[in-house]
Amino acid sequence: MAAGSLQPSMAPYFPGYRPFDPESLGLGAGFRLTSFSDMKGLLTGLEEGEPEDVGVPRLGIGMDSCVIPLRHRGLSLVQTTDFFYPSVEDPYMQGRIACANVLSDLYAMGITECDNMLMLLSVSQKMTEEEREKVTPLMIKGFKDAAEEGGTSVTGGQTVVNPWIIIGGVATVVCQSNEFIMPHNAVPGDVLVLTKPLGTQVAVNAHQWLDNPERWNKIRLVVTREDVELGYQEAMFNMATLNRTAAALMHTFNAHAATDITGFGILGHAQNLAQQQQSEVSFVIHNLPIIAKMTAITKACGNRFSLLQGTSAETSGGLLICLPREQAARFCAEIKSPKYGEGHQAWIIGIVEKGNRSARIIEKPRIIEVIPRGAGSSDSSTTQSLDGQC
Amino acid sequence: MAAGSLQPSMAPYFPGYRPFDPESLGLGAGFRLTSFSDMKGLLTGLEEGEPEDVGVPRLGIGMDSCVIPLRHRGLSLVQTTDFFYPSVEDPYMQGRIACANVLSDLYAMGITECDNMLMLLSVSQKMTEEEREKVTPLMIKGFKDAAEEGGTSVTGGQTVVNPWIIIGGVATVVCQSNEFIMPHNAVPGDVLVLTKPLGTQVAVNAHQWLDNPERWNKIRLVVTREDVELGYQEAMFNMATLNRTAAALMHTFNAHAATDITGFGILGHAQNLAQQQQSEVSFVIHNLPIIAKMTAITKACGNRFSLLQGTSAETSGGLLICLPREQAARFCAEIKSPKYGEGHQAWIIGIVEKGNRSARIIEKPRIIEVIPRGAGSSDSSTTQSLDGQC
Repeated sequence: MAAGSLQPSMAPYFPGYRPFDPESLGLGAGFRLTSFSDMKGLLTGLEEGEPEDVGVPRLGIGMDSCVIPLRHRGLSLVQTTDFFYPSVEDPYMQGRIACANVLSDLYAMGITECDNMLMLLSVSQKMTEEEREKVTPLMIKGFKDAAEEGGTSVTGGQTVVNPWIIIGGVATVVCQSNEFIMPHNAVPGDVLVLTKPLGTQVAVNAHQWLDNPERWNKIRLVVTREDVELGYQEAMFNMATLNRTAAALMHTFNAHAATDITGFGILGHAQNLAQQQQSEVSFVIHNLPIIAKMTAITKACGNRFSLLQGTSAETSGGLLICLPREQAARFCAEIKSPKYGEGHQAWIIGIVEKGNRSARIIEKPRIIEVIPRGAGSSDSSTTQSLDGQC
Repeated sequence: MAAGSLQPSMAPYFPGYRPFDPESLGLGAGFRLTSFSDMKGLLTGLEEGEPEDVGVPRLGIGMDSCVIPLRHRGLSLVQTTDFFYPSVEDPYMQGRIACANVLSDLYAMGITECDNMLMLLSVSQKMTEEEREKVTPLMIKGFKDAAEEGGTSVTGGQTVVNPWIIIGGVATVVCQSNEFIMPHNAVPGDVLVLTKPLGTQVAVNAHQWLDNPERWNKIRLVVTREDVELGYQEAMFNMATLNRTAAALMHTFNAHAATDITGFGILGHAQNLAQQQQSEVSFVIHNLPIIAKMTAITKACGNRFSLLQGTSAETSGGLLICLPREQAARFCAEIKSPKYGEGHQAWIIGIVEKGNRSARIIEKPRIIEVIPRGAGSSDSSTTQSLDGQC
């Protein structure tokens, strides 16, 4: 299966999507977007982890977005910024992923609207002029299309030249207090729900190893090239999927707290969320929904990704939501309803119990192998991931 | 005069300021912040100019900030983002300059408040760990101090690792329509006022040439090392000065339109502003206030900076404001009042006449040599730049 090819069954998730084909644009077949950065596959981990390592105080306040009370009665300014190095080879999808990742910080607070989006972009000085002219508009289009899907538009931004490609943005909304859900109301008895499978870092790395015989040899006994392609495409489409539906359903089902899963992995973000809780609670994770075959890859690599330990970086991951127990199953059923479009999933992955505001994964978590949608009908994918899935 | 030393007379402009001394931090005497980017002295020109060159559509709408009407009655969201490579060697001052440059886009619309600031930062992977630990907190402190001076605070942001240092931010305010001045109401008979002298690009380049014998030989017949040091420091302090006082006085003196001067130079931004006018007007620039000796340097370099043509890039330049003729002189007098602190200046540089929404500099503009404040008392500097200065 050639890089960039796509099973027809994937197409409905992004109407009008055409796989990126560098040759059809007059670029070399070997053009790789991710080569314009040295942060291959480690992007979010370094992005968010590095500042502490280098003695830079963290700016955030533990939440995904900042919430600023305004001078104008009852209104708050909520905004967030993020930027990224490429993790996929398709410039259009990279643009979508970057926008989805920025918006996700609003969605994690149950906010479904965005008043304005700014785009931050650096084009690589290492690209040829032709590469820039072909690739940059695709990234911008993907970013703008995702913003439009989020009900907002890109009104400004900044572009620079830099050794590496960077794409990101700033999402801003002015809202009333009932429009957002502060992430600190989890109580014992709540249930933890996750809305995208894990394993994006493994998937994008394994996909780059298709071109690297030495690396490939380490995993070829446990996966086929097609497994890797399908897992990569599943990761790419998941990363590009907005968490907006999940944000809307947080209100419907009375969510008590949420965060989105990115560079610190499922456990890192669960710990961060647990620390913010007003009640003395702990989060215990029993199930890990992971893109199929990514567990085998990480084991074959001597567990270099710490995927099963919950600290493998994710890019534009799902929401981790604390829901009342009786609402969680309904949340998971509702999000799969065709009325929200295809491509949404959710799993109950753990519980909230009394504790000391920490999070942990049980010793032998149940791995839910989430079959890529490109591998067959969505029916077959759900039957493969039986018991943890709602 | 050693790099980083500062005449006592400069100190009052930034209370508590101590010149950056790499050796006192345990770094090498040769540490140069601007070496962590290849964009030396050309930063803003490339930042803003390059996107068009590489076929990337410009995102802006011709204004410095975007103005988004909100769902909430009568309120607008105004925001802007900018980021930059280092132009000065002092990390603290670089942080201040970046913040002043971001806020300047709000100030150009007569907005004096900012509800929230996000900081965008990349630390250079080429720095040693020690350099990062010493230098990055200084940049952050400078940025935060300038934000505080602007009446706002930094509540979030994003930090990444990148080959080059980048620092910038996002400034956001929610305001009522009487708080901002749309930049399109210039009429014939108005006068053009500029609130900072030109020549920052020449000053930062010439300062780097102090370490480069080949370059230095080209200009050593027209300037002394002390001239260059003083011009560089004047540029650095001007770049770090907020345009907030100018923004407030735009309301007092009924400004009709304004923009801030950055990467396209005085003429580029004047042309951009002229194009946005509702009336059929042109801008004619007669006077160019320029940091002393920078004109001699640019001439000695075969005019490589196009400073006298008005297209030399500026960083965090002043506001160019269209004011009613009878108000302009009062504006220029008022901004120098001690009640706004020291360091503010303004010059009448041209007129608004009937025309086709263009801007030009007359054939032989009067050069106003603006003597650096570090060179003596502020009295002597104003007497040197007599006739164009109000």
